[in-house]
Amino acid sequence: MERDASVLLTDLYQLAMLQGYVEQGMEGTAVFEFFIRKLPSNRAFLLAAGLEQALDYLETLRFTPDELDWLRRRGGFSDRLIDYLGRLRFTGDVHAMPEGTVFFPHEPILRVTAPLPQAQLVETRLINLLHFGTLVASKAVRQVLAAPGKLLIDFGLRRAHGAEAGLLAARACYLAGMAGSATVLAEQRFGVPAYGTMAHSFVQAHDDELEAFAHFAQAQPEHVTLLLDTYDTEAAARKLPALAARLRNANIAIQAVRLDSGDLGEHARRVRRILDDAGLKEVRIFASGSLDETLVSGLVAAGAPIDGFGIGSSLVTSSDAPYLDCAYKLQEYAGRARRKRSEGKATWPGRKQVFRRYGADGCMAEDWLTLEDDALEGEALLQPVMQEGRRLAVSPPLSAVRARAAAQVAGLPEALRRLREAPSYPVYIADALVRLARQVDERTA
Amino acid sequence: MERDASVLLTDLYQLAMLQGYVEQGMEGTAVFEFFIRKLPSNRAFLLAAGLEQALDYLETLRFTPDELDWLRRRGGFSDRLIDYLGRLRFTGDVHAMPEGTVFFPHEPILRVTAPLPQAQLVETRLINLLHFGTLVASKAVRQVLAAPGKLLIDFGLRRAHGAEAGLLAARACYLAGMAGSATVLAEQRFGVPAYGTMAHSFVQAHDDELEAFAHFAQAQPEHVTLLLDTYDTEAAARKLPALAARLRNANIAIQAVRLDSGDLGEHARRVRRILDDAGLKEVRIFASGSLDETLVSGLVAAGAPIDGFGIGSSLVTSSDAPYLDCAYKLQEYAGRARRKRSEGKATWPGRKQVFRRYGADGCMAEDWLTLEDDALEGEALLQPVMQEGRRLAVSPPLSAVRARAAAQVAGLPEALRRLREAPSYPVYIADALVRLARQVDERTA
Repeated sequence: MERDASVLLTDLYQLAMLQGYVEQGMEGTAVFEFFIRKLPSNRAFLLAAGLEQALDYLETLRFTPDELDWLRRRGGFSDRLIDYLGRLRFTGDVHAMPEGTVFFPHEPILRVTAPLPQAQLVETRLINLLHFGTLVASKAVRQVLAAPGKLLIDFGLRRAHGAEAGLLAARACYLAGMAGSATVLAEQRFGVPAYGTMAHSFVQAHDDELEAFAHFAQAQPEHVTLLLDTYDTEAAARKLPALAARLRNANIAIQAVRLDSGDLGEHARRVRRILDDAGLKEVRIFASGSLDETLVSGLVAAGAPIDGFGIGSSLVTSSDAPYLDCAYKLQEYAGRARRKRSEGKATWPGRKQVFRRYGADGCMAEDWLTLEDDALEGEALLQPVMQEGRRLAVSPPLSAVRARAAAQVAGLPEALRRLREAPSYPVYIADALVRLARQVDERTA
Repeated sequence: MERDASVLLTDLYQLAMLQGYVEQGMEGTAVFEFFIRKLPSNRAFLLAAGLEQALDYLETLRFTPDELDWLRRRGGFSDRLIDYLGRLRFTGDVHAMPEGTVFFPHEPILRVTAPLPQAQLVETRLINLLHFGTLVASKAVRQVLAAPGKLLIDFGLRRAHGAEAGLLAARACYLAGMAGSATVLAEQRFGVPAYGTMAHSFVQAHDDELEAFAHFAQAQPEHVTLLLDTYDTEAAARKLPALAARLRNANIAIQAVRLDSGDLGEHARRVRRILDDAGLKEVRIFASGSLDETLVSGLVAAGAPIDGFGIGSSLVTSSDAPYLDCAYKLQEYAGRARRKRSEGKATWPGRKQVFRRYGADGCMAEDWLTLEDDALEGEALLQPVMQEGRRLAVSPPLSAVRARAAAQVAGLPEALRRLREAPSYPVYIADALVRLARQVDERTA
């Protein structure tokens, strides 16, 4: 397997610290955990994603000769460090919550146990991957909650933040329950179903709108979705009955129309009436254009006759919360639990586990955060996924991850599925953890 | 040169439309322009970035045999289209504003003139690159305006949206006037100066904070910046005089300290006093931790003794405006000007140029948007950069782009450099353009 990115995609301080560790022979076992510190407003839960890419990264981690040469020429690093980097592979263990798991602040979703320099070096890219996957999956699931039963498609690639963001956003959206994405590469790489319609330019490039529709239908007879708003939405809709009759002779059906501007609910009602009056009841209406879960749920609540939504920029940038307050922190080194006490950013020390308890209705009832060896009741959410640098099992197919996410969301208490003003879910800190934190503080005071 | 991303990183509808164009023989010359529709709130201007990556993309555009095979197996595309894609290269012309140019809504910063299928296919990735570069450069310049003369470093890689976002954000930040980035790869790829300190984990991994500081200084004797807030910021600062004396014997100087939590202004004042009282006046104070331009300008205005700032998540995600309302629209095809009239999204037709006029003080005074051949007074901002698929000149080094950006920002009217409540800059629409729009509307009515 090839690397998705250069190992130099890291913070300079990682290399500076590695130099310190290597010079001092500090290669004991370190335990780092990745967690989210707090929920953004309007979020009641998070959906874990990005583990698959994180494990790929760890399995393929290495410095190429070119990268080592560049570091040598750059200066600032000892030959000893560069030799060390040349030999470096990830040989540690990883525990993680499976992708598609619902989780909450302070609960680690990934734990790395590895020689200190390895566990340190991987910090930047692990956060980069887990943060973004979780960010978009946690946003995408809100679209699914906003419009149950509707066809929801990711349209965000063009305004995603670069190539990888576009690709991984498509994956996270599908994982979270959306139907697919416009991004072709996400179908090739991950099997995310690709959906596509047409752009205004296709209509504009023709001198006649009806001719544009006919050409598009002939070129894509299996997937005829026509964009109506280039000039006048209802005027375009009124051209469809005659076109449908023409196409029927060629055994082509108009499957759907797309509305992309103006008052989408009002246009949908008018277009629905035009289509229905012409007997085109089977033609579906798809809407797009600056949508987000609030607008979508408003359209659904108002009974707008819209069968599906294309959601783009707000979704893939998680625009109401474009980043999560997350961290990857050292919890143990050389057999001793550790924590920082920085104001407002203190962490819980030690190797931790999350135990989830369910109510009589089968729904999630409460989580307990404690030490790994404090065997509490409940389902242990962190599971071993990598040992000595190798995956313990073939990763589940994305469809299985998606099914897990759906089951997890279905298992949320009803109130937590609200798009706003949801209550907090109870996450308790076990006594064992509180005691350990106190001991660590006394030692480092 | 290699491609930075698969050509399949595009929207499915591009391929669907190409099938239509190819089937109909619609390979006439198309003109598309990229522009921003409106400014986000709290933005008075935009800074163009991403052109370099856009031109790389166009020059390396091609489908590999593997990609063609996959498309064939996938279905939905004709052999004729797949053969066409196999031969496809970008053979068109590009006009653009140089990177680092200040611009405003409705002003195209890039124009593509190429056979319709080529100009269409490149839409998604061109937007993806120009949007993100401009988004972050336009955010980063606000940090520079907030803290003139301070050392400003991009710390955002971990929470940037994926690998490419982290890398290109570092470039955009430097281009916009920041001093550098923590991202090592940005130094290797673009020459963006890399800066690094240490993480809390380095302190935590040691049983003693002072020992951690000493080890770090020995490992990085040229770049000693010590992180003070792992346990107690002032307590850590009080350890420095003795450490500085020890290190002086080894000819190592503590260059700076970093504060990363709590009330940064208050901590900076206390730490400054501790350092000054010990004669460590040359040790600089660097601050980080959930900063943005508003907080930074507040600290500067309050006279906090902070010499530099590390700014991360809010910067690289442009968190107050995580996307721009931008578009790449067909303005002409087969010799005829075109535009869409979609509600709230109508565009100005034709091949356009922006003429900028300057006042007696040398500052920008007003812009005129008009047709390319309408030779108005002023500086023409769009220049030819690519002809028949090849760059017309070697791209300027990033340092030159950075100098241009600095000169452009210095040429803004003073009021436009405010971080909030800046007035609008006048962009006039020339009569020639208004007349053409009317003609196009009459033709397509």
